[in-house]
This record gives sequence, C-alpha cells and structure tokens, in this order.
Amino acid sequence: MKSFASDNYSGAAPEIMQAIIEANCEHQPSYGNDSYTAQAQELLKATFGHQSESFFVYNGTAANSVALKAIVRSHHAILCSSTAHIATQEVGAVNNLTGCQTFIIPHENGKISAAAVQAAYNKATYWGHHGNLPKIVSVAQTTELGTVYSFDELRAISKVCRDNELIFHMDGCRLSNAAAFLNCSLVEVTRDVGVDVLSFGGTKNGLLFGEAIIFFKPELAKEFAYIHKQNLQLNSKMRFLSAQFIPYLRDKLWHRYAEHANQMCQRLTTGLLELEGVKLAYPQQSNQVFVYLPEKIIQATQNTYPFYLWDKEKKLARLVASFDTTIDDVDTFVKLARTA
Amino acid sequence: MKSFASDNYSGAAPEIMQAIIEANCEHQPSYGNDSYTAQAQELLKATFGHQSESFFVYNGTAANSVALKAIVRSHHAILCSSTAHIATQEVGAVNNLTGCQTFIIPHENGKISAAAVQAAYNKATYWGHHGNLPKIVSVAQTTELGTVYSFDELRAISKVCRDNELIFHMDGCRLSNAAAFLNCSLVEVTRDVGVDVLSFGGTKNGLLFGEAIIFFKPELAKEFAYIHKQNLQLNSKMRFLSAQFIPYLRDKLWHRYAEHANQMCQRLTTGLLELEGVKLAYPQQSNQVFVYLPEKIIQATQNTYPFYLWDKEKKLARLVASFDTTIDDVDTFVKLARTA
Amino acid sequence: MKSFASDNYSGAAPEIMQAIIEANCEHQPSYGNDSYTAQAQELLKATFGHQSESFFVYNGTAANSVALKAIVRSHHAILCSSTAHIATQEVGAVNNLTGCQTFIIPHENGKISAAAVQAAYNKATYWGHHGNLPKIVSVAQTTELGTVYSFDELRAISKVCRDNELIFHMDGCRLSNAAAFLNCSLVEVTRDVGVDVLSFGGTKNGLLFGEAIIFFKPELAKEFAYIHKQNLQLNSKMRFLSAQFIPYLRDKLWHRYAEHANQMCQRLTTGLLELEGVKLAYPQQSNQVFVYLPEKIIQATQNTYPFYLWDKEKKLARLVASFDTTIDDVDTFVKLARTA
Amino acid sequence: MKSFASDNYSGAAPEIMQAIIEANCEHQPSYGNDSYTAQAQELLKATFGHQSESFFVYNGTAANSVALKAIVRSHHAILCSSTAHIATQEVGAVNNLTGCQTFIIPHENGKISAAAVQAAYNKATYWGHHGNLPKIVSVAQTTELGTVYSFDELRAISKVCRDNELIFHMDGCRLSNAAAFLNCSLVEVTRDVGVDVLSFGGTKNGLLFGEAIIFFKPELAKEFAYIHKQNLQLNSKMRFLSAQFIPYLRDKLWHRYAEHANQMCQRLTTGLLELEGVKLAYPQQSNQVFVYLPEKIIQATQNTYPFYLWDKEKKLARLVASFDTTIDDVDTFVKLARTA
Repeated sequence: MKSFASDNYSGAAPEIMQAIIEANCEHQPSYGNDSYTAQAQELLKATFGHQSESFFVYNGTAANSVALKAIVRSHHAILCSSTAHIATQEVGAVNNLTGCQTFIIPHENGKISAAAVQAAYNKATYWGHHGNLPKIVSVAQTTELGTVYSFDELRAISKVCRDNELIFHMDGCRLSNAAAFLNCSLVEVTRDVGVDVLSFGGTKNGLLFGEAIIFFKPELAKEFAYIHKQNLQLNSKMRFLSAQFIPYLRDKLWHRYAEHANQMCQRLTTGLLELEGVKLAYPQQSNQVFVYLPEKIIQATQNTYPFYLWDKEKKLARLVASFDTTIDDVDTFVKLARTA
Repeated sequence: MKSFASDNYSGAAPEIMQAIIEANCEHQPSYGNDSYTAQAQELLKATFGHQSESFFVYNGTAANSVALKAIVRSHHAILCSSTAHIATQEVGAVNNLTGCQTFIIPHENGKISAAAVQAAYNKATYWGHHGNLPKIVSVAQTTELGTVYSFDELRAISKVCRDNELIFHMDGCRLSNAAAFLNCSLVEVTRDVGVDVLSFGGTKNGLLFGEAIIFFKPELAKEFAYIHKQNLQLNSKMRFLSAQFIPYLRDKLWHRYAEHANQMCQRLTTGLLELEGVKLAYPQQSNQVFVYLPEKIIQATQNTYPFYLWDKEKKLARLVASFDTTIDDVDTFVKLARTA
Repeated sequence: MKSFASDNYSGAAPEIMQAIIEANCEHQPSYGNDSYTAQAQELLKATFGHQSESFFVYNGTAANSVALKAIVRSHHAILCSSTAHIATQEVGAVNNLTGCQTFIIPHENGKISAAAVQAAYNKATYWGHHGNLPKIVSVAQTTELGTVYSFDELRAISKVCRDNELIFHMDGCRLSNAAAFLNCSLVEVTRDVGVDVLSFGGTKNGLLFGEAIIFFKPELAKEFAYIHKQNLQLNSKMRFLSAQFIPYLRDKLWHRYAEHANQMCQRLTTGLLELEGVKLAYPQQSNQVFVYLPEKIIQATQNTYPFYLWDKEKKLARLVASFDTTIDDVDTFVKLARTA
Repeated sequence: MKSFASDNYSGAAPEIMQAIIEANCEHQPSYGNDSYTAQAQELLKATFGHQSESFFVYNGTAANSVALKAIVRSHHAILCSSTAHIATQEVGAVNNLTGCQTFIIPHENGKISAAAVQAAYNKATYWGHHGNLPKIVSVAQTTELGTVYSFDELRAISKVCRDNELIFHMDGCRLSNAAAFLNCSLVEVTRDVGVDVLSFGGTKNGLLFGEAIIFFKPELAKEFAYIHKQNLQLNSKMRFLSAQFIPYLRDKLWHRYAEHANQMCQRLTTGLLELEGVKLAYPQQSNQVFVYLPEKIIQATQNTYPFYLWDKEKKLARLVASFDTTIDDVDTFVKLARTA
C-alpha cells in the first residue's frame, strides 16, 4: 500500500535502515555514552553551530514539549498559532508537562505575523501578574498547513521576541522541507533568523524513529540531561536512535528526501488543479498540500491511496508526499482523480 | 475612600465581622472539626440540597481550580468563554493544577451558548485521542461582563453536557447577584438547572475571606478531603472561615447584600446613561456594569471613586457596586460625571 | 473548651482581632495594593533585613510548598527529615506542586545533622542525571518534635548547602517559639545563619489566619507575584491578612505569645515528669512536648483537655501550649494526671 | 567490545532486527493502526489473557510512570522498595507525572514483604487525609538486586493489596528473567498472582527499543489512548516498535534469551565464587549478580569487560549477562579474575 495520508505512513529510508543495522555490533555503552551518539552530536554541532547543544528524543510531541519544559515555568504562557500542533494535536502534552497556558494567535495560511504576536503579548500582559506571563513564541516551519515562513517573516517575529524578552521556539518536524523550499541550509532558517530552540524532525522524513532538540543558547540546556530522562526521552540503547542521524546529516539525506517529497507534492498539486472543482486551500510550498476535492474524486482515489479529510463537511483534503513517493504514485493518483 | 473598582475593595459586612468575633471563643478543634464548620455545612446542605457536599476554600481562584482538579485528569479539556476568569485572570491556576487545556468558546455579552458548546465539543473531538477529551463546561454566573444567564440558557447548556458526558461547572463568585437578579433561590439557579459543581462566592459579597465548593453529586467529592488539603485550602483555624457562612446563609445576607449592590449598580447605570457620550457595553444585570465613558468623565470621577478601565484605548470602564455602596456614593459619582 | 491538642485549637489573640477590626474601614485596593499590606511588608523588611522580599499566604502548607515551588524545577530533589511536615502532613503538596521528589534524612530528636545532609547528597548524586538533583535542604525550626536547632547546628547545615549549591529552606511555622527559646531575634536565627528562604508562621502563634514567605535573596523571588497568585495565595481583601502582622511585628507580639506558650509547656513538662510512669520522648524546648503517658493518665485527662496520641500503641502523647494557655490550665491538667 | 555492565549495552537480537527489516515495507497506517501492531497486541492477549489491554511504549521509565499515571491521582501514594527503579533511577518521573509521593519500604535482598507493605500502609494512613492516600504497591520482578519474588511472596503482597484497596503494579523490565528462573509462563507470575498492571520489558532482553504496559483489568485502561499520547509514548511509525514483539512472543524469544542470560550469569557467579575474596551480596537468581570483588580483580577485569560498581567504597560490583553473552565471555572474565 502507498498513500498520501501522512509522511508517517512511510517506513524507514534504506540508508537509515542500513545505519541501524551497522550500529548493531557487539556492546556499546547505554544511555547515550556510545560512539554513534558522539558522532551524531558532532554532526549536529557542524550543522547547527558549535554553540548549539542537542539531545535526541523519541517523537515530535516529545521534541516540542520537553524542549519547552526546559525553558518555561508554570506561570508562563506559550504563544502559538491556532493551528499549532502543540495546541491541537498533542493532547496538551506541553500544557501538562509545563503547567503553562497556550495563548492562541489567529493565523493566515497557518502562519502568525509579528504584529499578531505583539498584539497577543500586549493583551496577555494587560492585567500584569493576574495572567500568565508570555515567555515563548512557537512557530511551526513548515506550518501544519504546509506553508513556509519566509526569512523576513521569521526575522520580524524574532524581533518581537527580543523586544519583549520572549524565547523563540520552532517546531521543525518538517523543517527539512522548509529548508528545501527556501533553498537554504538548516542553520540559516533557524539560528540565523533568531530561533532559540528547535524541535528538529526526523521521523516524517525517512527516519525509523527519532527527533532532536537543538538549543542554540547553551544556557537554555542547563541541567537538561535530568529533564531529558525525567521526561521519558533517554533511550537506553541510544545508538539506534542517534546512528540514524549520521547519514541523515553527513550525507545530507535530510535535503534529498525533503526535496524529493516537495517535488512530488508539487507535481500532485499541479495535476489536481487542472481538474474541475479542485481548489487549493493554502499555497503549496512543501510536501503537504490542502485541497478542496469534489466528492467523486474523493471516492475515486481514497481507497487506493488513502488520505485524510481535514474537514469532512467542506471536503478539505490533506495530501502528503513522502521520501518514497514515486512519480508513478502521483500520476496514478491524478489519473484516478481525472477519470472519476 | 469608597470606589467602584471592585467588590473586593469593600471590607467585611458588620454581621460577618460579628460572626468572626463570636467564633473567637476558647479552643475548637482545628482543620474543620469544629462546631461552626458543622453548622455552616448543614446550612449549605439546607441551601443546596441534602445530596450536596461542600468544602470551604480561601479564594475564588481556589474555588474554581480545586473544584475542577477534583474532577478532571490531565488529558481532559475544559470548555469556557473567552472571558472566563479561569482562562484569563487566574494565572492559569486550573491549567497548572490539572494539566488540562482550556478550550475557548466565543461569547456574546460574556455568555456562551449551548450551540457554541456543542460546536466546540465537535471540533475538539474530531481527531479522537490526538486532542484533549472535553470533560468540563464552565460558565460564570454572573458572567465576567456583569450579565446573567437565563434559566433557559443554562438548561440548554446542561443538556449539551448530558448529551456529551460533560460535567457542568459554574463559577459562582457572584452567584448571589445573579440569583437576586433572577429573583430565585440559590439551588434553583444551580442544581435545578443541571449544574454539577459550583464555586460559591462569598468574599465579593461582604465576607472577610472565603468561598465554598459545592458538589451536587456526592461521587464527584470522593477523596476530596485529600485534594482539599493538598491544594492548600484546609484552613487550620477553620471556624473563622466557616462561621462567616452561618449568618450569610441563615439570615439570607447573601441575598440582601447582592440585591442592594445590584440596585446601586442599576441606579448608577441609569444616571450615567443620561449623560452624553456614555454608552452601555453590555446589559446591566448585576452589580457590575461596563460602560464606554468620555475621557472628561473618566478624569472627573476616577480620583474620587477609583475604577478600572477594561480597555484603555476604547475607554471601556467597569463599575462595580458593593454591599456597602450607598445611594450617596452613586449620586455623587453621577454628579461628578455630569459636571465634568 | 481548652486543650493541649494543638496551637491551632486556640483562636485569635485579642490584639490581632483588634487589628482586623480596625482594617475594616471603607474601601482599600484589593490584592495587596492597600496601605496595611504596605505597612506590614515594611515591618517584615525591618524584621528580616531590607534585602528580603516577603509575601503573605494563607496557611503553613502553602508557605512551604509555594516557597519551594518558586525555587525548584521538577528534576530537583528536596532533602528533609523523616519527620518533616512537608513530607508527612501536607498530602505531598510540595511534591504535587513542584513535581520533585523529597529525599528523607534520618533524624535525631527531629533534627537532621549536617553530616547526614552531606551523606544524603552524596547518595543522591551517585548516578548523576539518573536521579533527581538535590536543590533544597529544608529544616523545621522548631522541629515537628518540639526541639530547637542550635545556632551551630544551623550554621553547619548552611555550610553543607553552600558547599553543594543547595538552597536552605526553613519551615518556621513555629519559628517564634524557637527564637524565644534561643533568646534571639528572628533574623539571627534565619538569615544570619544562612537561611535562604523562610516560611514564617503566624496562625499557630495567635493569628486568625496567615503566614508569610520570606526570600532573603531577592533573585529567588523573581516573578513570584505570578507564582503567588497561580498557587491560590493572593487574598483579594489582602488587608485582613496583612494587617495582623502589623502589631505582631511592631509590638513584638510574636515574642510575647511564643515566650508565654514555651513557659506554659515547660511548666506542664515539669509537672508531668514528677509523676510515675511519665517519660520524656524528646527534650522540651518549645511549646510542644512529647511524653509517654500511662494509660490511666491519658484516661484521666484527655476528655477535659484533649490532646493527640502521636503513637497509640506506645502511648506517645503530644502536648501543645498556646498563647492563651493559662497557669490554671497547666496546673489543672497536672492535677488530673496526678490523681489518676 | 563485550561487557557485563548492563543488558542495555547489548544490541538487538538477530530475530528482532529481522522483524524490523520485514516491517519496513511500503506504507502502513501510523500511530498504531497498522497490521503489525494489531498482530502484536493479539499475541499480548494470548500471552497475558484476553481480558488484558496492552500499549507499547518507548522505554522502561515510561512503562512504569505512564502506567501509574493512568491509575493514580496526585493525592495518592505509591509504596515501593527503597531499591525501586521508580524511586531511585528515573529522575522521579513518576512523581513528576503523577504529583504523588513515593513511600519507601525497607527491603530484604531487594524484596519487600507483605508485612512491611501493611506496616507502611498503616503508618501512611494514621493521620487520615493529612497524608497521601496509598493507592499503589509497586514491586520489581526481578528486583533491582537481581533477586526473584517467589509465588508465595507475590500472593501475600497481592492479598495486602486486596485487603486495603491497593492496586498491584509490577515493574517487569526483567520479568522474562524471573519467569525463566521460576520456570513459569508470563501470566502465571503476573495476573495469576494478583498483579493489576505490568510494565513488561523488552529492551533489556534483546529488543532494539520498546516495552509494553499491560492492564489486567480493562477499567484501568479507560481513556488510556489519550494518556499514552499525552505522555509522549505514541510512536508515529508504531509498526517498528510493535513488530519486534511478534517473534518475541510468538517464538518465545523472551524465554530463550532470558534463560540464556540467566545461565550465563549463574556460570559467572559459580566461577567467581571459587575465587578468594569474592563474596555474594544477594542470591543469584537471574541475569544480574551483585558481588563484592577484591580490588585486584576489579583492576584485572574492568577494562576488558566493563561493569559498574554499585558502591565504590565497598567494592560492590553488579555483573549483568545479556542474550548475547557467550560461554567464552564468561570464562574469559573468570580467567582474568583468577589470574589477577
């Protein structure tokens, strides 16, 4: 079965699987004291800057909520888009782990603007210590709606953060796709635009499992080894998680897989938009596209290539390409739609 | 100094102070095992029904957040108005104590409708166990904007609760004012319309300190004695808190004080609305009124009778009458405004 | 009824009640922005040093757990005696609010030694970030067993704290009794021996309700206004809490009440120890004494002057004198015991 | 490198790796809706009883703390041995996630007795709702000291649980080794002796990563899907976690690997005890043994086959055999020790 349901439906890329197999040799120290983890962390430093401190975690919910737990205290607030995964799709893990409130900011195409962040900050602080103190601005890059923040948009948000003593967090579960779209390096779209802490995705882009948390300011990572373990993220046989990041970074697999998925999504979008009744909901800028589909197209395609309806009433479909989506997959899907 | 800033600016009513003085006799068992607490709890049963279980707490934030902590678990969600005190004015105490998310429902004049609750429930449960499970609907009666839910409005919300296995919580920090407005008893506007758990206010209506939590279903109060103490609400010399509720309930002081404050607010509203440029923001139905005031009226009154601007830019003022607001206070304020 | 059950069985001292009555004049700003609170906080600065920052809270459990919540994060540990109120009598409020573990240290007469603290620290840190990082040492002065740490004992613990980057917390719910016993000022037995944060008791020594948290290092109080309110301690009509501290500190009522209660306890102890079969469990140094009583003495006294058995099998009784215990109370009790 | 440091130093067993490789085929629904997970859950039902409900989690800390979070509320207490991993080696994850206290019970050879549990319960409940209410008894099977509870010992603890309305939790991170030692099935040493909830280990016995939580009473698993995801345990590409359990259970690899590791540990123990100065600390009953070693033996072996000293001063070593420990490894280690 192939699908356009999620980049989590795909498996592990062959290079990643090979790295795991190779790491399975004799004994290695547990809990991250092994040579694979050391090598992967060095590659993360080479990728994100030598000031950065990185930690491997199991999944995206953990990458977001444990990174934020390291920074906030329960009387703080986290400002994010109404579409934010942390606010809508993680059973409130960040609220539960931190005790904080999330303050929702209206979005445009999944993106929050610097002005909207400032307005939310102003409103939140109107009554002083009777409300939570905003401490974090969190954006998803790419957004949950498949769009990509521009450099200017990110720099403007970063400025609001600095002006108001806010920490800038990026949920980068699909960061690779954004960097491929922007044709930039990973550090250019994170540290260089003022991001303080990053949830760096892996699983959605060909890894078997695993994400990383990157602190760009070492002081944010103080005592994080304790927080990491307390929050259930210290893999005992850590090498199997970290080893995946070696080819992923060293051989720039992150870029190759993401670029490919983006291209497949673009091809799919182009094909579908030629069909009557298909309407784009948001700009297609990554490996996810949201389109309104006529009922007969849904019927004609969904059994062969499953996908999710984001809004059943409005027939709003999300279509996601993966590292392993082929031109044939795309063209078959479009053909099924065309002949519906 | 007298003010229209808050019913928390007033002190303790004379009958309440007298009850405290009388309770200060020799020794009494601590932690609520005293005769005053027993008598006050009996009066609460007489007031709210013999099935009800009640506990005294220190303040309104505690009444709301500890009551809800008793019921929810961290994967649940609490549905409430965007104006809700629990969501905006309590430093997220309920989020911190419970780990839950609060899901914000749009309001009209501070009130949420049954339809809006149902829509929020539907949206929240769209992705199943990827989002928090709604468990509580919380309404404030009176609302934070001084308006009062009608019986029909409350019954409709109660029906949505029953249809979706939701618990109905009422933040009744100014419940007495609502009951006075509706000309009903306290049980008629709570248990009888389907409320499951109530935060019953005292401090804002003439008490020196103290509120009560009323569980209308005894099973919701299971093990609450532990929760009560763990969450910092077990007063060691409990008699001084509980004794205040004896005249408050026995002599229906709650009604006398609230009725008076409501009338003073109505007189104030009537007087102000006769002035040019004064505009009502929401219906005046209790002891709070929100009015847009011309700048010169603000200047002419605020130093003599302080009050808060809810929105500085829009010159939206909140004016609150208390149990001890006098006709003279009201008339002097209106005169100052008129001659501004 | 008079009792030797608890200093929480007594009511409010007359000077305290008078202060409350006087504070009940017209309107005052709420939430601590009133003139009484300002005056009380000045007196706390005069008492505990001008660097100190103080906040009023409702009860002892709050004083301990909210003070500690301000300092620790969930991966920290709190070291305390196995008799510590925070570990045994507060339904784990501090564990719940902070997420921390409490590590129990063996005691002698209710006191932990500097050496025992160091040993506990060493054990806790043996496996590095696989266990909670010790952050707090908490001692009760007086202890839960009625004994009093000497200056040397406190200085030795303070040194272990400084050597290991630990914060020194004192649960001073009966600090006044300790200072009276040691014949010293309140600051001499706290700040001057290295205490960083203090829970300063009031209720057990004649107040109607209320305690204070004193941070001796201002940086520990950073953002505490938010923490204070979030953790349910911001009294709306704050003046009624804070006003009690004005005569308490200004007129040194804390010392007069505590000295009196200590003396009554000493007289009681002396009287009882003359009787056959009565045995002292721990040194009598404050207003609490623990004695093993023959069954017939228990039978002869407990109905007239209630008290608690700390261990029913061993017939270990705790007897507590209050600010309002009279010589007649003591002598009557001893007489009942003697003629048993 | 081979070691006796930890069963976490070994990699993944070949059959397990093969299962992962086979699961890496095309697309599968994410978040556990795949066919591998369905098959693995069926095998868990076949293993632990058809009433049981099981969930896959990432590691042992998660298995323990998320299982317990599903059951307790913050005013509860968890009773466990002073050696318990949950109390000493998991950065207080269970305290943080649940807000509960852990009450420590003295152990003998790592085991707590039914009588000690009852005594701890009695002590904890002496003051009623002033202390946490015991709700859980947690035992590790095998214990952290490598010993194994007998059926009688477990049944006796289970009876204390039933008598006092306590839930019986087993930390089974090395349950397979215990079952191999007791020569019984997995259900016989869990459900059949009264265990209510089990953390079932995998990683320490040849899995690449992953454990399972087994609820023997379905009502304990109510709403657990939400708790599972909120607490960071919902693997997006779940098949790679669950697929490992297919051969593990179907082909009884759990038994084969554990039996082998136990035998290697026994051979090692026998060999070492023949040497002068070597002393057994606790009975050798599983794949872990604790021995006091002369300094020269430590020096002669630790570089070639690393292991941990549980107590550096007392030269107490923990030696752990794994599924991949060979007779040659054991004999070489003993030879190094003998010729030291």
